[in-house]
Amino acid sequence: MVHLGVDALLVTDLINVQYLTGFTGSNAALLVVGSDGEDGAADGTDEAEARTRFCTDGRYTTQSAAEVPDLPRVIGRPCDLALLRLAPGGVVGFEARSVTVADHAPLLAIAADSKRPIELAPTLDMVEGLRAVKDAGEIDALARACAVADRALEELIEAAGIRPGRTERAVGLDLDQRMRELGATDPAFETIVAAGANSAIPHHRPTGAVLAAGDFVKLDFGATVDGYHSDMTRTFVLGAPADWQREIYLVVQQAQTAGRLACRVGATGAEIDAAARDVISDAGYGPQFSHGLGHGVGLQIHEAPSLARESPSMMVPDMCVTVEPGVYLPGRGGVRIEDSGVIRADGGYYVLTQTSKELCVLA
Amino acid sequence: MVHLGVDALLVTDLINVQYLTGFTGSNAALLVVGSDGEDGAADGTDEAEARTRFCTDGRYTTQSAAEVPDLPRVIGRPCDLALLRLAPGGVVGFEARSVTVADHAPLLAIAADSKRPIELAPTLDMVEGLRAVKDAGEIDALARACAVADRALEELIEAAGIRPGRTERAVGLDLDQRMRELGATDPAFETIVAAGANSAIPHHRPTGAVLAAGDFVKLDFGATVDGYHSDMTRTFVLGAPADWQREIYLVVQQAQTAGRLACRVGATGAEIDAAARDVISDAGYGPQFSHGLGHGVGLQIHEAPSLARESPSMMVPDMCVTVEPGVYLPGRGGVRIEDSGVIRADGGYYVLTQTSKELCVLA
Repeated sequence: MVHLGVDALLVTDLINVQYLTGFTGSNAALLVVGSDGEDGAADGTDEAEARTRFCTDGRYTTQSAAEVPDLPRVIGRPCDLALLRLAPGGVVGFEARSVTVADHAPLLAIAADSKRPIELAPTLDMVEGLRAVKDAGEIDALARACAVADRALEELIEAAGIRPGRTERAVGLDLDQRMRELGATDPAFETIVAAGANSAIPHHRPTGAVLAAGDFVKLDFGATVDGYHSDMTRTFVLGAPADWQREIYLVVQQAQTAGRLACRVGATGAEIDAAARDVISDAGYGPQFSHGLGHGVGLQIHEAPSLARESPSMMVPDMCVTVEPGVYLPGRGGVRIEDSGVIRADGGYYVLTQTSKELCVLA
Repeated sequence: MVHLGVDALLVTDLINVQYLTGFTGSNAALLVVGSDGEDGAADGTDEAEARTRFCTDGRYTTQSAAEVPDLPRVIGRPCDLALLRLAPGGVVGFEARSVTVADHAPLLAIAADSKRPIELAPTLDMVEGLRAVKDAGEIDALARACAVADRALEELIEAAGIRPGRTERAVGLDLDQRMRELGATDPAFETIVAAGANSAIPHHRPTGAVLAAGDFVKLDFGATVDGYHSDMTRTFVLGAPADWQREIYLVVQQAQTAGRLACRVGATGAEIDAAARDVISDAGYGPQFSHGLGHGVGLQIHEAPSLARESPSMMVPDMCVTVEPGVYLPGRGGVRIEDSGVIRADGGYYVLTQTSKELCVLA
């Protein structure tokens, strides 16, 4: 790991530990020790494997043996301190977004007491950068999570679950239950069901508000499958759409298409955001699109890269991102259309969420 | 706040912000500015209210206006930096368990640049200490959360939902759905359903394992109501209990009673833990009770105080804690019995979880 500027990396962010080891419990850390650049490659690799260590506490002795069979394990707590005591001398990176000021002090004390000189170095997003690019198994898990969400929405519509007289909350519970029955561990986040004027609130929590004829109904939801999160939004109309509803729907739909088409290898997050935002601004609704265009999805519902106004993130093959423009008219209603998909090596964006994005009128 | 050693406190832990303000969104901070000790009490209070400020970002402009009507609001991000720029000179405490090393650096930079000399001081558990003691509204929310869990379990049993042939996962989904239908926002945590030998794993996640005659079935679950979490465990037997099952059940039941009786004003967490642990140790199962006796419950499922071997926490009226001893025999099965309840001013422990703790045989 000479090229990263550290001799070892103490991984304490639990999602990063899960990503690197497969461990799914609630307390763990990992000390990744690089091979010595001076040694031969084979020797160096062996040495690194022998010294890279995983730590969890006694509650997870059995579970970690099954989930992390290939790494030397330490059972103890706090995990960060237990591992730092075993670190080799040199520069030991730690995750500055994960380690709190309260946790930092005892780490510094152990480094100061170590017989091997240890310099603790804050690092940012080392593992998060790796996580932004998915392997085939991860893309498969995301595809299955998206399929569960698609199928649950299809079932909900077939059962006339989105209809006047139902509350936002009842619709949300129904959709969540269908996702669970289809194999989701859980919803990927708190499902948004926003009807009528509530649809103009970008992040609305379902209430007892009753769906009524003429409403926009916006559903933003996803499924968690094998730890991976899908994310999709569709907006429906209950009954014949008014002209203003048809107008903003079409603007958002066109912006979403422009955003998807801009999702190409080499594009930056800012460029992709602009491609969709320009469509909305040209239609006169720029101020009503108040959030970024999208974000990475994976072990977390929001992760790198960012598709937003000033995002420098450059798209590379196998990044998984959402594309979700919206237009929100306070007091009247709003539309958002969102897919999750994969940046393809051949240059395009492969959509994982398959539900139609045409304006759909529910009776 | 002279007695706390700070002139102002920057609250960044989101649960602490929710506790102090009622805000339920996903991004916020609070700057609490103390009254000037030199001023008269009334003046000082007015001055503090005028300078204490709440901050969230643009997504929550509407929601925060409704939830936090009485505090001056700042809309911006990052919230911690926006508020520190408005802080008075003096010692500004920050929450060292919440602020990461990455977040700390820009705070230090703002303090260094401030025209008013600011000294940033790490603090621990200032708000958490307040949260350990509940007011009447909080106890009411906990009672309602416990009632939802009790009723959901009663319904599950009446519907013969805990029966041979069902999987752990199916039982868990059924129980969760019943809690939601009874008004829970969500389960308080991932429901534990552990059958047969799995019941010997203290924190088992539901699997496809099928319940069978003769099994212990351990359910550890709770409901979230108005942000407050209930927590209870009951262990059943499917069919006539074997002698070893009856034996460890009675030991745990007696230990749980001893623990509840020890929950009195003035007792320490260590003393209460010992009261229950001694019963189990005297019966010869000490090593098989591998965790602490209990913990505070409230806006988080685990919070202060701790009931455990070396816990110095002293019980005061209106603390809400769990009492949950267990005995686990690896490869065979285990029993845990857990209540949530309130330390009463009159000295005793008022149990909020009402389901019977007698050995219950489900056919």
